[in-house]
Amino acid sequence: MNTYKIAVIPGDGIGKEVVPAAIEVLDSIAKLDGNFKFEWTYFPWGCDYYLEHGEMMPGDGLETLKQYDQIFLGAVGMPELVPDHISLWGLLIKIRRGMKQSINVRPAKLLAGLQSPLKNPQNFDITVVRENSEGEYSDSGGRIHTGEDEIAIQNAIFTRKRTERAMRYAFELAKSSRKHVTSATKSNGLTYSMPFWDEVFNVVKKDYPEIDTSVQHIDALAAFFVMKPQAFDIIVASNLFGDILTDLGGAIMGSIGIAPAANLNIEREYPSMFEPVHGSAPDIAGLGIANPIGQIWTGKMMLDFLGHYHAGTRILTAIEKTLSSGVKTGDLGGTATLEEVKNTVINYL
Amino acid sequence: MNTYKIAVIPGDGIGKEVVPAAIEVLDSIAKLDGNFKFEWTYFPWGCDYYLEHGEMMPGDGLETLKQYDQIFLGAVGMPELVPDHISLWGLLIKIRRGMKQSINVRPAKLLAGLQSPLKNPQNFDITVVRENSEGEYSDSGGRIHTGEDEIAIQNAIFTRKRTERAMRYAFELAKSSRKHVTSATKSNGLTYSMPFWDEVFNVVKKDYPEIDTSVQHIDALAAFFVMKPQAFDIIVASNLFGDILTDLGGAIMGSIGIAPAANLNIEREYPSMFEPVHGSAPDIAGLGIANPIGQIWTGKMMLDFLGHYHAGTRILTAIEKTLSSGVKTGDLGGTATLEEVKNTVINYL
Ligand SMILES: CC(C)[C@H](C(=O)O)[C@@H](O)C(=O)O
Ligand SMILES: CC(C)[C@H](C(=O)O)[C@@H](O)C(=O)O
Repeated sequence: MNTYKIAVIPGDGIGKEVVPAAIEVLDSIAKLDGNFKFEWTYFPWGCDYYLEHGEMMPGDGLETLKQYDQIFLGAVGMPELVPDHISLWGLLIKIRRGMKQSINVRPAKLLAGLQSPLKNPQNFDITVVRENSEGEYSDSGGRIHTGEDEIAIQNAIFTRKRTERAMRYAFELAKSSRKHVTSATKSNGLTYSMPFWDEVFNVVKKDYPEIDTSVQHIDALAAFFVMKPQAFDIIVASNLFGDILTDLGGAIMGSIGIAPAANLNIEREYPSMFEPVHGSAPDIAGLGIANPIGQIWTGKMMLDFLGHYHAGTRILTAIEKTLSSGVKTGDLGGTATLEEVKNTVINYL
Repeated sequence: MNTYKIAVIPGDGIGKEVVPAAIEVLDSIAKLDGNFKFEWTYFPWGCDYYLEHGEMMPGDGLETLKQYDQIFLGAVGMPELVPDHISLWGLLIKIRRGMKQSINVRPAKLLAGLQSPLKNPQNFDITVVRENSEGEYSDSGGRIHTGEDEIAIQNAIFTRKRTERAMRYAFELAKSSRKHVTSATKSNGLTYSMPFWDEVFNVVKKDYPEIDTSVQHIDALAAFFVMKPQAFDIIVASNLFGDILTDLGGAIMGSIGIAPAANLNIEREYPSMFEPVHGSAPDIAGLGIANPIGQIWTGKMMLDFLGHYHAGTRILTAIEKTLSSGVKTGDLGGTATLEEVKNTVINYL
């Protein structure tokens, strides 16, 4: 019997509601499966913590997290009270970087029972592999002059090592998928970063002759997510492009509230962090109506990463049965509460 | 009677087909209107020209263009033969910058007769105002080291003057529209450029108390284009974000082949350039099946900029009648040729 020590950070807003719900689901599947169990340790880090302590997490927070097998996170941000750059860079992005979670994986897949806003969504099943540690989010830049002469500069920094790592991970995933990798670029407009990205892609793909490849500019790719999402298998994208494509992925599935994500330390040197695509949704927080599916599906990704594929599949099947039975929260056009959705998923396990 | 001297650059691929078609439509409306006419001067610049002369346009090309009232451009690019960064930076972007066309305007609107890929597209009518001269497309950056240590840096440069100009233009448009401006940002991830962008937006909006505003991160905004495009009126966006949103705008309308665009020198010091969103589509070039609507609608934007609103409206109405009558090219699910679509539009004028 494996016991997994999981650090739980519900975070802000609806994170505090969807995380406990997903944990109930994970505990249920653990019991049913019988081969593993979880030990959950809660950390009350986030914007409330910031308002009290002046920091989003304690100074030794990263060291603390290293003692756990994985991290299960809800959502971060209360923009009315704490500026985003403080809340996100002080917690979410700090952990992504501090734990060297250099790959962000996010599926977009038409589940049974979901109503896509697309008229004819076909059966798309996309996995976006996002470089998660540098690129456009390099926190490098500055300003010069003031008043009408003011200039701001943002530097996007791409290293061969991390670009290549994301791409290789995408090709590895493609091996056990439909054997196609699409690279998201914009080398016609961004004349330094993206030609470099393209070059690295051309080198890496030579090591995977069995995998088909294609290259699309981010603008066209965004349009294709709407026009023919079924054309894609694995997509590898930079930090910003991956961010945009995965929100779009959530949208074509039917709701951002559905979309799961994993921030992976693929070397398994430090814990990975499992965190849905959606944010803290302060407008509906505390009402018991948030959609827990994104967080529950994120739990399935954690199970997969721990090697419990069978248990993970049972969760996804239970999610699909729940949706198909019409038990859905408001964002999906239903009237169910978070509690009802969670209980229905557990029943279907 | 006004006579407009227009420089025509069909460019590459389907540009060579859709431009003459749109010109026929524009000549027809001029004749019907009776208050203006066009004098078209063709310039055979583009990738063919490059293959012969080693440059996309002559060295004095920009000076030549300054002698015209406006520029009517098709599409640029033949990636199989000329790398994109040469063809685009040597012609398209060179003209945008050389003619100080610092604003790019692109509508996304559900026309009568169009089949949106969205199940329930409502009646969206969005105008994206894109900063067109700097930002992420600053052609500034470099590389250091080689092999596994290689690093590429791309600098996005934002000046207050040009950021503000784009925003003010958006607010001006909003006055005669539905009085709402949305700013596309990503200040939670891009920590220098986008907080600056947000700051400028907060200053500019104070001068327009009658206009409502909202701010959305680009990832969420892309998702909203799919989930509820009817929520937006005018959107102001940086060069890259505007690029992505307008391709998405084309997609939710039903085809990128529909979407029009204008590169405006709002000071009217030099000619503006009217150029559809779509590219040169080498795969269908020369077959007579390209959709001319994007180019024709782009012609309507030129008429508007010249102050001929009534003539412009007649073109848009004729486009809608054509689409409603089922005369559509393949990208819109029809079987009509370019020629048939063009003739039908002219009949409906
Ligand atoms: C071809 C490319 C450089 C261009 C851009 O990104 O500006 C195009 O996508 C557009 O939107 O006009
Ligand atoms: C909140 C923000 C910084 C974050 C990102 O862009 O990475 C979010 O949008 C996400 O995708 O996880």
